[in-house]
Amino acid sequence: MKSLVCVVLSLCVCSAIAATLRSSKQSPSTGFAAPVLTPPKAANALSKRLDNSFVNPVTLVGESSPRSGYGVYDGPRMSLPPGEKPVVIGVAADSGCGKSTFMRRVTQIFGGKNVGLLPIGRETNTLVSDIATIICLDDYHSLDRKGRAETGLSALDPKANNFDLMYEQVKAIKEGTTVEKPIYNHITGELDPAETIEPSPIFIVEGLHPIYDSRVKDLVDFSVYLDITDDVKFAWKIQRDMEERGHSLESIQKSIESRKPDFAAYVEPQKKEADIVIQVLPSSLVDDPKGKYLKVRLIQRLGVENFTPVELFESGADVDGFAPSKTSVPQSTIGLKIKQYSEDWFGHPARVLEMDGEYDDVSSLAAIEKFLVNAGEKSSAEVVSAMEKVKDAPGSLNGTGFLQTLCALKIREVYEKIQGETVEELLKKVEAVPAAA
Amino acid sequence: MKSLVCVVLSLCVCSAIAATLRSSKQSPSTGFAAPVLTPPKAANALSKRLDNSFVNPVTLVGESSPRSGYGVYDGPRMSLPPGEKPVVIGVAADSGCGKSTFMRRVTQIFGGKNVGLLPIGRETNTLVSDIATIICLDDYHSLDRKGRAETGLSALDPKANNFDLMYEQVKAIKEGTTVEKPIYNHITGELDPAETIEPSPIFIVEGLHPIYDSRVKDLVDFSVYLDITDDVKFAWKIQRDMEERGHSLESIQKSIESRKPDFAAYVEPQKKEADIVIQVLPSSLVDDPKGKYLKVRLIQRLGVENFTPVELFESGADVDGFAPSKTSVPQSTIGLKIKQYSEDWFGHPARVLEMDGEYDDVSSLAAIEKFLVNAGEKSSAEVVSAMEKVKDAPGSLNGTGFLQTLCALKIREVYEKIQGETVEELLKKVEAVPAAA
Repeated sequence: MKSLVCVVLSLCVCSAIAATLRSSKQSPSTGFAAPVLTPPKAANALSKRLDNSFVNPVTLVGESSPRSGYGVYDGPRMSLPPGEKPVVIGVAADSGCGKSTFMRRVTQIFGGKNVGLLPIGRETNTLVSDIATIICLDDYHSLDRKGRAETGLSALDPKANNFDLMYEQVKAIKEGTTVEKPIYNHITGELDPAETIEPSPIFIVEGLHPIYDSRVKDLVDFSVYLDITDDVKFAWKIQRDMEERGHSLESIQKSIESRKPDFAAYVEPQKKEADIVIQVLPSSLVDDPKGKYLKVRLIQRLGVENFTPVELFESGADVDGFAPSKTSVPQSTIGLKIKQYSEDWFGHPARVLEMDGEYDDVSSLAAIEKFLVNAGEKSSAEVVSAMEKVKDAPGSLNGTGFLQTLCALKIREVYEKIQGETVEELLKKVEAVPAAA
Repeated sequence: MKSLVCVVLSLCVCSAIAATLRSSKQSPSTGFAAPVLTPPKAANALSKRLDNSFVNPVTLVGESSPRSGYGVYDGPRMSLPPGEKPVVIGVAADSGCGKSTFMRRVTQIFGGKNVGLLPIGRETNTLVSDIATIICLDDYHSLDRKGRAETGLSALDPKANNFDLMYEQVKAIKEGTTVEKPIYNHITGELDPAETIEPSPIFIVEGLHPIYDSRVKDLVDFSVYLDITDDVKFAWKIQRDMEERGHSLESIQKSIESRKPDFAAYVEPQKKEADIVIQVLPSSLVDDPKGKYLKVRLIQRLGVENFTPVELFESGADVDGFAPSKTSVPQSTIGLKIKQYSEDWFGHPARVLEMDGEYDDVSSLAAIEKFLVNAGEKSSAEVVSAMEKVKDAPGSLNGTGFLQTLCALKIREVYEKIQGETVEELLKKVEAVPAAA
């Protein structure tokens, strides 16, 4: 059995639009002194030039930050309790694939009362809560923006990233050791001085390549891949960049095509190996070239340690299509259809839970939640309750929100099975830690 | 609101193979003295000639009896309690359509400890239990076998049946009046002297024409049509008459074709008006020309007084296909698939619950029963429990048994709503009646 759980998220654009709002107030930290690993010098000089080779596909203009909604963390911080080691979760995805929303759902499920930026007094991509640390793997870029421009390498290319250091530092964290992790500054495109990352019970590693390097992959206890299919990516770009920002169709197509080879070579292959894939496709319920309506699939591999797929009605039952009544789940648009089936996922047997279409009200999903089995819920209405707490988040009224929430519950379950401790028990220990003054 | 419930079953061949086993012992009867309606004289002379125009399609040789499995009733009999009137249920179907099995399921649900032939000491088609009476509408044939042969009329032709008398007597029963009902003797093909039928709380009228005559239809509180589609009828005949009895394919086809015009004209139209239709079709899961595998549909009209359709998972939800796992519901053959949807049933909105395929074990249906809503169950496992009590009956391992049982539960629910009394309360009154010595 793996001893830790790594959360690896493919957040490729972790900048800091809200940097001016941040305070430098340090929060208290409990735990043990640990050896410190330091990063090598930044490989390239700093540059302010905008570099679109690694941009959020829905913006095309500069780099956006999935951290922009967060302030600086000022709650109590828990270091590793005696005898515990971090559980490491990996989350992989392309940029602009809804990772920030997914992270909101995950941190919500892990019960942290506060989530915010690591308080280092300057630009950071690291999010923390009382019990979790979320690092962005962009921080392991070995080439800064200027360096990528000079070499012609994209940020997706492994040669533009330092996998040796990524491996060493994730390994150190799993062993309970504090590290000095480099920072990629999305605002400046520069490699900033390192920040101190202390091990915490839950350690999420998100970015483009959380399970690309086999050494890092072996350290990750459970992995998730957020898979936005090309049709949806293209539709989203068209909608935002052409209709809202006046870009030409040609420039959008060119932007997408230019990223495709490296994405297909270095990022996409990870979805074959992830334990859970959340795949977003155009709806099959309606002809919708604008990609407004989505079909979302939760692809869950079988035979994964500490993990049993969440299913509808019954484990192993196949559902060609379940459409809840409009009385119990109001649907004013194209309707809602849920399917469930087995699938060969690149040679791995998997169970798939699929939700196509939309609904009008998060609370009405109670009518579906009651049919879930192996959901890892702590109460009969936890899915709806968790979704209601972030109901303003994108995807809350389609399969994205529902299946991301189910995925978050499974991550928590994996954590608890590995650690032999519930999150509630863990949080009680945090309550003993005084909040920052 | 209708004040009574009439059970009308289309039992067309109600003979008495087991006649030699019957005793003439009379059972005690409680209740009130009532006026007696007597039938007219038998229209035609007796005849021993075999008449295949109205034969069970699965035998082709002589008339078979759906009553052949029953002995003479010798338990306590309840007449109408003070202030009650019979609830009349109509069950329509062609001959050989599994009515006897359906009646076993219905009487089982109505909780009678004993079911048997009315003890008149000679051939009868009337079944009774402690609280129910089941009459066969063949008893209203106005032409005996010889008369039909002479006129060329089939038993399906209204002109060979006395609807005036049927109406008068069903009306009398609903008003709590004892009647002298004629008897059609399936062994001799003759019209025998009348038998005395006393009103009982539940009155089931089964045969070819329970809701053909609008006057009788108006007396029926709830109606069921057992619809074996032509493909299945033909497959069954081929299987039994050709393969097991050496009949030629031509003779079987001729027999089916000869009945078709009258059946289509006088029997089949009733399915448009029935409150529930149990329709049996060839399976869609496999190419099965022998009709071994069945798809069964429970077609339930909406807007019927005292009746809410039984549904799976949720009222109003559509299910394109639900296939329980082979772990929870073992299926060694073609598998099992349940669907649910709305349908326009000859101009009437209806909800359809469909079961296609087979399962290995009645008890495993608990995995499906738990998802039923509005099933009218008295306990969480009543469907399985009821099916297990008659698990030797045909159809117990496919949708026939399951959906017939659900239909029986709905009939009981209709009874209880009309009568404002549970069947359990009714049965308690019977316990006060001493059994026959």
